[in-house]
Amino acid sequence: MHTNEIVATAHALADAARAATLAHFRSPLLEADNKASGHFDPVTAGDRAAEDAMRAILAERRPHDAILGEERGHTKGESGLTWVLDPIDGTRAFLCGAPSWGVLIAVSDESGPIYGLIDQPFIRERFEGGLGIARTDGPLGPRDLRTRPPRPMSEALLMSTFPEVGTAEEQAAFGRVAAQARLTRYGMDCYAYALVAAGQIDLVIEAGLQPYDIQAPMAVIEAAGGIVTDWQGRRAPQGGRIIAAANPQIHAEALEILNG
Amino acid sequence: MHTNEIVATAHALADAARAATLAHFRSPLLEADNKASGHFDPVTAGDRAAEDAMRAILAERRPHDAILGEERGHTKGESGLTWVLDPIDGTRAFLCGAPSWGVLIAVSDESGPIYGLIDQPFIRERFEGGLGIARTDGPLGPRDLRTRPPRPMSEALLMSTFPEVGTAEEQAAFGRVAAQARLTRYGMDCYAYALVAAGQIDLVIEAGLQPYDIQAPMAVIEAAGGIVTDWQGRRAPQGGRIIAAANPQIHAEALEILNG
Repeated sequence: MHTNEIVATAHALADAARAATLAHFRSPLLEADNKASGHFDPVTAGDRAAEDAMRAILAERRPHDAILGEERGHTKGESGLTWVLDPIDGTRAFLCGAPSWGVLIAVSDESGPIYGLIDQPFIRERFEGGLGIARTDGPLGPRDLRTRPPRPMSEALLMSTFPEVGTAEEQAAFGRVAAQARLTRYGMDCYAYALVAAGQIDLVIEAGLQPYDIQAPMAVIEAAGGIVTDWQGRRAPQGGRIIAAANPQIHAEALEILNG
Repeated sequence: MHTNEIVATAHALADAARAATLAHFRSPLLEADNKASGHFDPVTAGDRAAEDAMRAILAERRPHDAILGEERGHTKGESGLTWVLDPIDGTRAFLCGAPSWGVLIAVSDESGPIYGLIDQPFIRERFEGGLGIARTDGPLGPRDLRTRPPRPMSEALLMSTFPEVGTAEEQAAFGRVAAQARLTRYGMDCYAYALVAAGQIDLVIEAGLQPYDIQAPMAVIEAAGGIVTDWQGRRAPQGGRIIAAANPQIHAEALEILNG
């Protein structure tokens, strides 16, 4: 496997998606378009433009790989590798102009993601992990990614996108962890996973995720020393109920509370 | 009043606060410091360093103005103008490494804020309004600020920092508005007010605010065409229960639901 070519291709995809999404983010023309057409949706337009731009690059550089994209579905390949793309993760944040959405790119084999990249185009910040890499580059310059060392749950920082995590049962389980954590914050979308990888927070707990929501964060966090599983502690590249933890200790403690 | 000098001074303060806060934001040394000292608090350190840096500039450039700072309290003046400073609004976000905190700077006379500035140092994005100005500069370049035109509540985008807005009664009132809005997002801190001014969202509703939390956002939003009051519709430079709205129509509709 040509590791350098995979990583270079992932960055080319992220660059293309950055341009395509920013063309639609906070556009002052959106209001006028919206009025004129009645139903123009900037998020859908940005989503599709970014995925199409990434697929065009893959068609040229990686024609034998499969693709699973949030917007355009599955394209078969014969290499054993699949590019898993979510051009805009956090569409509600995008709609509000908030900089917590991101472009998610993963490369997976039959075992799950082997490399992942999270890009925040507006901040111009990128996080990547896997294939021997665990690094970020952004407003503060390039840095290695490393998750936080263990600390008690009473000192842990927890994030989830919504206060309404999923079903009533899932929400109650999440609430038990939130009640024991030092603080709980909402609304960071995929950026929350980047903050686990960057050693800023201890836990992200969510439910109802798709494969393209979690594979890139999973690869980045695992490369930085963290652990991402379902609420039963199993590896979960297919999504569903997800817990991302900075280290095995806080992961185990949170799982016990979730299932308690 | 020398308008240009006031605006130039505000930018000098914001530049100084940007440097002082970023020196403590996401610092990889925090972990080590924390272990060594037992009680090192990066947020408090950044807060104090930024306010001290701003006060040093004011002492030189605006010695006759009063100062009200979140960290260092009130300093008397004789010009009739007060600089109202919150060096890190959104300390929990800062602690988590999330880019929704900001530096808030307002200049007020006896009527309330006449100029305000919201700066997000990590994104390098600045919003200012008052004294004939309503503009932003950041990753997408300089733009005029203008709030959104009226739309029905069912199309409105609403933000608040916490799902727990305040007392149980305040939370119930907020919940009535949230139930009618198109979508509700949490966790954006002072950045939510900037999104109202930038025409991205329609409403921010919060409770328990201090003067230094609201005066800068109030000036920026008013300059961009919006309206900021308490939940009774009165101008509220002293904080408390606050509603910030993109236009008088959505403001009136939200007030009616809040008090319904």
